[in-house]
Amino acid sequence: MSQMIGEQSVCFENPVSILGAASVVGKKEGEGPLGSYFDMVCDDPMMGCKCWEEAESTLQKEAAQLAMAKANLDKQRIRMIFAGDLLAQSIASSFGIMDFRIPVYGLYGACSTMGEAMSLGAMAVAGGYGDCVLSLTSSHFASAEKEFRFPLAYGNQRPLSASWTVTGSGACVLGKTGGKAVITGVTAGKIIDNGLKDSMNMGACMATAASDTIYHNLIDFQRSPKDYDKIITGDLGSIGQKILWDILGERGIDIRNNHMDCGIEIFDQEKQDTHAGGSGCGCAASVFVSYILPKIESGEWKRVLFVPTGALLSKVSFSEGNSVPGIAHGVVVDTK
Amino acid sequence: MSQMIGEQSVCFENPVSILGAASVVGKKEGEGPLGSYFDMVCDDPMMGCKCWEEAESTLQKEAAQLAMAKANLDKQRIRMIFAGDLLAQSIASSFGIMDFRIPVYGLYGACSTMGEAMSLGAMAVAGGYGDCVLSLTSSHFASAEKEFRFPLAYGNQRPLSASWTVTGSGACVLGKTGGKAVITGVTAGKIIDNGLKDSMNMGACMATAASDTIYHNLIDFQRSPKDYDKIITGDLGSIGQKILWDILGERGIDIRNNHMDCGIEIFDQEKQDTHAGGSGCGCAASVFVSYILPKIESGEWKRVLFVPTGALLSKVSFSEGNSVPGIAHGVVVDTK
Repeated sequence: MSQMIGEQSVCFENPVSILGAASVVGKKEGEGPLGSYFDMVCDDPMMGCKCWEEAESTLQKEAAQLAMAKANLDKQRIRMIFAGDLLAQSIASSFGIMDFRIPVYGLYGACSTMGEAMSLGAMAVAGGYGDCVLSLTSSHFASAEKEFRFPLAYGNQRPLSASWTVTGSGACVLGKTGGKAVITGVTAGKIIDNGLKDSMNMGACMATAASDTIYHNLIDFQRSPKDYDKIITGDLGSIGQKILWDILGERGIDIRNNHMDCGIEIFDQEKQDTHAGGSGCGCAASVFVSYILPKIESGEWKRVLFVPTGALLSKVSFSEGNSVPGIAHGVVVDTK
Repeated sequence: MSQMIGEQSVCFENPVSILGAASVVGKKEGEGPLGSYFDMVCDDPMMGCKCWEEAESTLQKEAAQLAMAKANLDKQRIRMIFAGDLLAQSIASSFGIMDFRIPVYGLYGACSTMGEAMSLGAMAVAGGYGDCVLSLTSSHFASAEKEFRFPLAYGNQRPLSASWTVTGSGACVLGKTGGKAVITGVTAGKIIDNGLKDSMNMGACMATAASDTIYHNLIDFQRSPKDYDKIITGDLGSIGQKILWDILGERGIDIRNNHMDCGIEIFDQEKQDTHAGGSGCGCAASVFVSYILPKIESGEWKRVLFVPTGALLSKVSFSEGNSVPGIAHGVVVDTK
């Protein structure tokens, strides 16, 4: 048995079903263009908790519970969880999901983590390691600002190339059978460093990695962009999107007609002061489960390449003058 | 096809081979009881680099290259890497392995990460997603102190229950065939919080999680401790070991005769001032590949349960008064 295709992809002989999925987001996301699609919008950014990190853990917990409920499965039926977030030592995930007492594989792929969680989750189900698994990620504007940038009260100025971290979590239950959408393949991403050091322009830092994953997905699966109803990146934003188009254009690949970026869609850039777009693990995850997945399930989009994108930096790597490498993990989702 | 057994384990129908493995450690580790077993001992804690984080990245790079060389494989043959470390946003791994240009799934399991990397790596090979994959982790005393505790120059006092972060990296190449040792099963660990908040006594914080994973491994595989030549935890240290023995003893399981802890073995507690023992992702990883694996390959130990242990804390979770939950991932390794 071999399911490998091309250089860095897997094609599942038995596609993996998406049995249930749910999103929980904050007030600003609820006020954005996709506001009506999310399962739960919380007006309180603290989620009733005493600190931002705990609030983010609560986003994960709620999203996971809703996804299991929508899949009509008790938590005892979930064999393992693939989860991660942006915070140091992934504490939003650890504290968010520990009460479930389900085995956990913790992940870190920056804002690409939902792509990684869905890829490894699908591999686990297809490999026979679990009948049902849960893939989930989160981010929170305030915990991310605290982790990577400045205290909120400092009110720092943000350049127009900066993105706005989404407060939100998305969770998917994957399983062997059922559901109306299936994961048919994945393309694992390489870490790619284009030398850029501007942490306030993460779209530019990640665009090369996104282009590499999309390029290899097309080559590995022997497809052209038109074989996908949509090619959807995570959080390149308006600047990263243009760079992505340019890089792929130089390789003779035109995705302008069917490209979408979750970071661009989730906010109204003009009215919501979010500059280049939304970002964070919760951006791609919440947009996928709320907006993209239903369109695949209904057949409006029959095949989508979902490519969450991550910028691999920390405040230490930034302070030490390092570049910001990118990574992007591709997941192919088809109407069943 | 189902390879699931019991509540939280996988038994591989086709065991996954360990094709090559290598360790790179620091001077103190080289002076310890296992000093002669490591592949490379570096006297310079900076590894010729300009900061601790870059030094840790270099440990990973060297260990990975040595492991691939010992497996007699070019990097082009490695389909994907499963890697992680202790630093915020896993930057030691990101910057350590990016030049290989191999697809990467980034992991976070605190000091249990080598168990997670070997588990997911074995699942990937057994599932047909890659003929050869690389599992690796690292830690560095100085980067870990900077990340979690105090500046080195501050010279803080450490209680006797504290552990000493190992400067080291361990890497394993896993593949379908070849080698003299095989991964025959894994037991995924749950996050378990026993309410302890003492980050200077991580052995106690992790012991409950270790006992849970060992217990479920024995139940799932229908084995008793004597079915393993050794049951080897990652970095419980001398205090955590006693707690582990007590918890399992209360459940009627006596592992005292065949338990070993990598953290206890790697340093001479009396002569090296390392208190409860070694810790860090690099502890279990370097001891496994240098000391444990050769004994399995030679048949001196025919079957081992390797259980790296992790304490899930960050400086933020600590400062906010949270407990320190634990996690432990079990890997069963047999002589081929």
